[in-house]
Amino acid sequence: MSQAAAASSEAVTACVLIIGNEILSGRTQDVNLAFIARTLNERGIQVREARTIPDIEEVIVDTVNAVRSRFDYVFTTGGIGPTHDDITAECVARAFGVPLIMHPDIEARIRGYAAQRGLAPDVIQTSLRMARVPEGADLIDTEIGAPGFRIGNVYVMAGIPAVMQSMISLLAPKLSGSLPVRSRSIGAFLGESLVADPLRAIQDRNPEVDVGSYPFSENGRYGTTLVIRGTDEQHLNAVLAEIRAMLDGLGAETLQRD
Amino acid sequence: MSQAAAASSEAVTACVLIIGNEILSGRTQDVNLAFIARTLNERGIQVREARTIPDIEEVIVDTVNAVRSRFDYVFTTGGIGPTHDDITAECVARAFGVPLIMHPDIEARIRGYAAQRGLAPDVIQTSLRMARVPEGADLIDTEIGAPGFRIGNVYVMAGIPAVMQSMISLLAPKLSGSLPVRSRSIGAFLGESLVADPLRAIQDRNPEVDVGSYPFSENGRYGTTLVIRGTDEQHLNAVLAEIRAMLDGLGAETLQRD
Repeated sequence: MSQAAAASSEAVTACVLIIGNEILSGRTQDVNLAFIARTLNERGIQVREARTIPDIEEVIVDTVNAVRSRFDYVFTTGGIGPTHDDITAECVARAFGVPLIMHPDIEARIRGYAAQRGLAPDVIQTSLRMARVPEGADLIDTEIGAPGFRIGNVYVMAGIPAVMQSMISLLAPKLSGSLPVRSRSIGAFLGESLVADPLRAIQDRNPEVDVGSYPFSENGRYGTTLVIRGTDEQHLNAVLAEIRAMLDGLGAETLQRD
Repeated sequence: MSQAAAASSEAVTACVLIIGNEILSGRTQDVNLAFIARTLNERGIQVREARTIPDIEEVIVDTVNAVRSRFDYVFTTGGIGPTHDDITAECVARAFGVPLIMHPDIEARIRGYAAQRGLAPDVIQTSLRMARVPEGADLIDTEIGAPGFRIGNVYVMAGIPAVMQSMISLLAPKLSGSLPVRSRSIGAFLGESLVADPLRAIQDRNPEVDVGSYPFSENGRYGTTLVIRGTDEQHLNAVLAEIRAMLDGLGAETLQRD
């Protein structure tokens, strides 16, 4: 990303906090960041940082407070279930310095579900842990599972991918953003060193887009994928044409990329 | 993770920095964190935080400096190729306040490779960007591609998974750690709310292990995976037996987990 694009006053930014020991231990592969980033980008919100942190109260509180002032939006995933290791709600309440309360709408929903299923009183009590939100929080709807919540610019979502995806998909259309970042890509069977100089020249001539270079290996052949990112489609097409001409000039075999 | 385990003076800790716009945009799915976490754990080094950050100089410099004092080790991935968007080496040099120099061993290796292939002088010059390391850095070996480097407690590795995996696999045996965290897991076709109370009691009785609870859905049936983590295998087996007895008491159908 060029410094110019990064500093653009127009960009609406987000930070994602992935909360959970199971991601940090490598036991579970996170797939939420990529989904959140793509969904938010469609609303013109750019994820500029992500942090994966453990289920430790001090760490969650400090991290929420460190990032909520630096980004327009903060999205968290994980730690909002009913078990002892689900501590996100209480940590976010602490970060905002407000009490944790039982949200009447979630409580009613859980009690209705429990009555339908004939759950025992102690199980209902435990399930009601999922109704706890910081005072003043709004709910984040979901088609599966218990709702998430928002307080200030912090959006607290489930860690289970299907539930998180339902939440962010319903939520994103309500968020205000700027222009989505679009991209163009082209692959070439050339080493990065061969394209580096002409590519830098193209980037320098076009500071309003970001030109990235990523090596790949396909069926044992090495190559480079060139990616152009920016908010202006005409600009992207023009820079793609420049890059294509540069690759043709080098006699490179190119590949269509989506 | 229990606060007790987190605060253990014995634990050797690490932070992983994933550097690259393509991960933050959601275009590329990161797979490096999980591999690094599992490999380091075998050496008794626990990844306690990961940050994904863009290719922006100020952000990289500030982040390296923010985390290198807080963790025993910092591992970065990404941004060490030859193109204009590969800025990790210069950022790490800036973070340490040292000049960027051409490392004689990498330079010799690149020049040897270039002579073999008959590369043009300007391409050689560009490839030599990969020989730049902060003054005082050691090299990190790899079986594929150009080496990474270490300065202080910061280990700078490639972003391409195959190259990074070669680097961390060769590197890990040389690092000093403590005891690896081991785990035991068991799945049960029970909702989290049903196990939450007895599970909390088991966690409270066994503060030296961390008990985690993760909901799953398998062939349309919902269940909960319970994971016990700790460094003492006998302890883990004892707590697993307690959890198994608890699940049997609830009449739950259980599942073997690895």
